[in-house]
Amino acid sequence: MDRRAFLTKSAIAGTGLAGASALAAPAVAQGNQTWRMVTTWPKNFPGLGVGAQRLADRITAASGGRLTIQVYAAGELVPALQSLDTVIDGGAEMCHSAAYYWQNKSTALSFFTGVPYGMTSTELSAWMRHMGGQELWDEVYDQFGLQSFLSGNTGVQAGGWFREELTGLSDVQGLRFRTPGLGGQVWEKLGATVTNVAAGEIFQALQSGTLDAAEFVGPYNDLALGFYQVAKNYYMPSFIEPGLATELTVDKAKYQELPEDLQAIIRDCSQAEYDMVTADFAANDPRALRTLQEEHGVTVRQFPDEILEAGATAAQEVITELREGGDDLTKRTVESFVESLNLMRSRSQTMDDPFMRAREQYFSL
Amino acid sequence: MDRRAFLTKSAIAGTGLAGASALAAPAVAQGNQTWRMVTTWPKNFPGLGVGAQRLADRITAASGGRLTIQVYAAGELVPALQSLDTVIDGGAEMCHSAAYYWQNKSTALSFFTGVPYGMTSTELSAWMRHMGGQELWDEVYDQFGLQSFLSGNTGVQAGGWFREELTGLSDVQGLRFRTPGLGGQVWEKLGATVTNVAAGEIFQALQSGTLDAAEFVGPYNDLALGFYQVAKNYYMPSFIEPGLATELTVDKAKYQELPEDLQAIIRDCSQAEYDMVTADFAANDPRALRTLQEEHGVTVRQFPDEILEAGATAAQEVITELREGGDDLTKRTVESFVESLNLMRSRSQTMDDPFMRAREQYFSL
Repeated sequence: MDRRAFLTKSAIAGTGLAGASALAAPAVAQGNQTWRMVTTWPKNFPGLGVGAQRLADRITAASGGRLTIQVYAAGELVPALQSLDTVIDGGAEMCHSAAYYWQNKSTALSFFTGVPYGMTSTELSAWMRHMGGQELWDEVYDQFGLQSFLSGNTGVQAGGWFREELTGLSDVQGLRFRTPGLGGQVWEKLGATVTNVAAGEIFQALQSGTLDAAEFVGPYNDLALGFYQVAKNYYMPSFIEPGLATELTVDKAKYQELPEDLQAIIRDCSQAEYDMVTADFAANDPRALRTLQEEHGVTVRQFPDEILEAGATAAQEVITELREGGDDLTKRTVESFVESLNLMRSRSQTMDDPFMRAREQYFSL
Repeated sequence: MDRRAFLTKSAIAGTGLAGASALAAPAVAQGNQTWRMVTTWPKNFPGLGVGAQRLADRITAASGGRLTIQVYAAGELVPALQSLDTVIDGGAEMCHSAAYYWQNKSTALSFFTGVPYGMTSTELSAWMRHMGGQELWDEVYDQFGLQSFLSGNTGVQAGGWFREELTGLSDVQGLRFRTPGLGGQVWEKLGATVTNVAAGEIFQALQSGTLDAAEFVGPYNDLALGFYQVAKNYYMPSFIEPGLATELTVDKAKYQELPEDLQAIIRDCSQAEYDMVTADFAANDPRALRTLQEEHGVTVRQFPDEILEAGATAAQEVITELREGGDDLTKRTVESFVESLNLMRSRSQTMDDPFMRAREQYFSL
């Protein structure tokens, strides 16, 4: 519905006197409306749920209340994994989640969230905004009448909680490990028995020994879920999730019916939140990591090189399968992703990584 | 001036019939106004000048034209380095630049741009938004009636263009090197003779041999200025500029007189641009680097370890001098900066850097 139609219809529904009531009711005259944002996150979930609420508040404030966003945490309006379908079916106007949850709709979608050994948060933003990524994403979601924007990133995640220490690749054989998506496929290739129990069940499964290990997000979220109570070995880094990008997905027809300033506000606020959430994890992961180590006796370990190397080989296989065997749009997405990553690596190799190495080695205050 | 006062005054000035003319002139009735943004960048300067224009366009679009931003490149309205004073004096409403240009107003300001061996773009954003940085910045600029927002970041810069190869620290003695700010102080401690010729004069000075070396930004900007024609050794990385953050600085009184939705739009659009500019450099530095190497015969080199190490010692001294000898606000700024950096390093050491190392070593497609 365009703005004029909305005004007319609202006014008519209200009083039957379109012209007069539009003038008499400023809220309607300004085209005020409320949109529902369903999310895949628990209420106030560190970083992600908080980011969804803050994005809603930003849009409401920047629009001067013309577009008020009402947030529904996972399960409040619909179960988390029905969020996107709810937008497609018209049960909500927008959804805050992660594109890789919907890879059953298109295998291309993982690349807009993060893939094993893939892009960091800055690299992903560069690909999306300056190297053709957004255009491919638009093509994918256009098939479902959706329009999506990046809205946050966790940064490099933690590798996972392990009940026992890992000495090498042999310890991975038969290891019952909770990890979803393409990362799960990588760990399967390493020999793990991968399951994907829901977030709320991880603790119990680790405690009872149904799981030997589980990967979730990083210190900021993992501290909140208390995994340190049932597994003391915290392995780093997550080579399967160098960053999880969140998305704000909007009903495309409704988005296009908005006046252009409100369209711009949704776009700009989403991009502001991409920075805000990334910064939130950068600030709060290390605070949580310190608490885990100093107050809860957690041992932070690095994966043995053997596992990192086998993981890279497996990641190459998983990505190559999609690059060569995926549908046309997935193939083009992987091609663009790989080409962009390879180009950007020439910057990280010569500029970013050498700086970090030098700072690490020589600088302290 | 608040919105109502603006309306009344404009209407009175126009016709003397306030009520009638406000209704008759929709542009005024909606409180439309145009603000001037002076900048320290040449028109369409890669990354930075382009970012200033894009930020202006974002604010204009998101406000539906209620706040139209007119951009003036360096020298168009006032010379680059008079930009901030022009806002203070009321000659413009906003200024797009970098805080360290104004360190003569407060030595704290360098820390909101980037300091030798300091924070990366993500770390700076984390400090500013989640660890108290913005509050300190507000305190500094409040003294001048200004309100500032981060609006971009170059990421890790290049170390500089050198006419001759560097074999070690001894080659730095007496080297005539162009580099500004705290980075200049670091290179002076290493033995260089530091000068700060204006950007437009670097090429000529390198060509004539008045300079032995010069540091500017990174491949994206340096390619545009053609330094490769007169110096073939391109050293990496810039340990003195792990990122230059740009700022959007606004006349605080005028900002506070804006309706809250327009205040939010300026804030949100600036943060969106922080991500956009950072992503622009991540995408376009490597493209430019490839061109420099493949088409212009530039040799990309890494600084010898001896220089990186001495640079770190010098950076520690420069920062410690401000931490111990600065004014109260500078001391508190340095303290907060160092404490936040040290905390975040526990994340980069355990998660980010090990991921980058593993990707570099084991993963290729």
